[in-house]
Amino acid sequence: MALRTLGPKAAAALDEELMSSGAFSIDQLMELAGLSVSQAMYALSPPSKSPRVLVACGPGNNGGDGLVAARHLHHFGYKPTKYFPKQTKNELYQRLRTQLEQLKVPFTDDFVSAMGKTDWVIDAIFGFSFSGEVREPFPAVIKALAESKVPVLAVDAPSSWNIDDGPPDDGPGKDYNPDALISLTAPKPLVKWFKGKHYVGGRFVGKEIADKYEFDIPPYEGGDQVVEVPLNGKL
Amino acid sequence: MALRTLGPKAAAALDEELMSSGAFSIDQLMELAGLSVSQAMYALSPPSKSPRVLVACGPGNNGGDGLVAARHLHHFGYKPTKYFPKQTKNELYQRLRTQLEQLKVPFTDDFVSAMGKTDWVIDAIFGFSFSGEVREPFPAVIKALAESKVPVLAVDAPSSWNIDDGPPDDGPGKDYNPDALISLTAPKPLVKWFKGKHYVGGRFVGKEIADKYEFDIPPYEGGDQVVEVPLNGKL
Repeated sequence: MALRTLGPKAAAALDEELMSSGAFSIDQLMELAGLSVSQAMYALSPPSKSPRVLVACGPGNNGGDGLVAARHLHHFGYKPTKYFPKQTKNELYQRLRTQLEQLKVPFTDDFVSAMGKTDWVIDAIFGFSFSGEVREPFPAVIKALAESKVPVLAVDAPSSWNIDDGPPDDGPGKDYNPDALISLTAPKPLVKWFKGKHYVGGRFVGKEIADKYEFDIPPYEGGDQVVEVPLNGKL
Repeated sequence: MALRTLGPKAAAALDEELMSSGAFSIDQLMELAGLSVSQAMYALSPPSKSPRVLVACGPGNNGGDGLVAARHLHHFGYKPTKYFPKQTKNELYQRLRTQLEQLKVPFTDDFVSAMGKTDWVIDAIFGFSFSGEVREPFPAVIKALAESKVPVLAVDAPSSWNIDDGPPDDGPGKDYNPDALISLTAPKPLVKWFKGKHYVGGRFVGKEIADKYEFDIPPYEGGDQVVEVPLNGKL
């Protein structure tokens, strides 16, 4: 049996519930989510093999997860570089940036050039709340990801994919299928179209919540924050 | 060479720096610290061996780390119980409590009785900011810990120990030497008197900060958030 998936509306409602009656702060949830992203990266390829990781961060929470992941990657011995072109004035994102600056994690404005100088890319551009059109400056970024010879780990969704319906019919994301995906909390319906290594992370939900939202807690081992969960009925 | 230690004033200054110029929120730091405590517990004894863990939480940040650890222990498959007699009105602690309530983690008011019904105890009563006298209701708790036949994991410091000078000359903590200790960020000088299994957790500080405060980043492996570091020059 494959893990049940969590659609975009349910995922938004779950986030809202965790931060209201669940009493979580976004700092807590993003820290655990970003940590699990960095640990999926480690499971895919340790820094001895692929020291350079380019982390592409979008303007929302998916980008925030990327910023947190970049910080942990630094501590794990990687040399991350961040691309974060749409920086909001939100206080949390400013703090996440400062945390990276203190570690001297470099940034780039030129994603396409940076792709030529990295061993892996993390796509933390758009997450489960994405729908509609890819806005500037991201079409060129997604085109580069789709054509990339460098392996890509996508966070929660390959950016530009529709959360329910998978890859778009046209546009830069049409042929984008990243090498790896980490689903946060639970896989989204788009995994049906994904072909690659699949992880689940973001281990902060109990069984009651999983039952209420009709998804499964993946088979985490021990105190791990991430687990590989093959798709296509192989669980 | 043993890891260098971090005295109480330096530890307080480091915390202050991380939360001011370092731009960390206490939510972030406590989440990572508490997670590492829960992972040390797992390394000591998995839930298949010792499902019941009694987490004793003091009124300050050490207690907050314990509350976070209890939540992660639940997700790891333990049956934690919390003892948290001095609950502050601080918003963060209220949220940490709510998070445990949502998972139906039970609490106890009677620590001594609860000791008879647990497989391990986590001592998250006092941390590096402790000095002076043990106030009510904790003397009886520390006496129970000192006399405990149930193994104890202390967080950052065996409660009632002087951070620089180790076990007190008299009082309930005089003969208290827990089975295990997890030092957060760096060992405190009191480790000189500690005889047991030693871990370091709280992996959120870069080399520059470690150099500035003259301590060592312990030899974490991979993406781990905790590492066993034998004391007494065995590193």
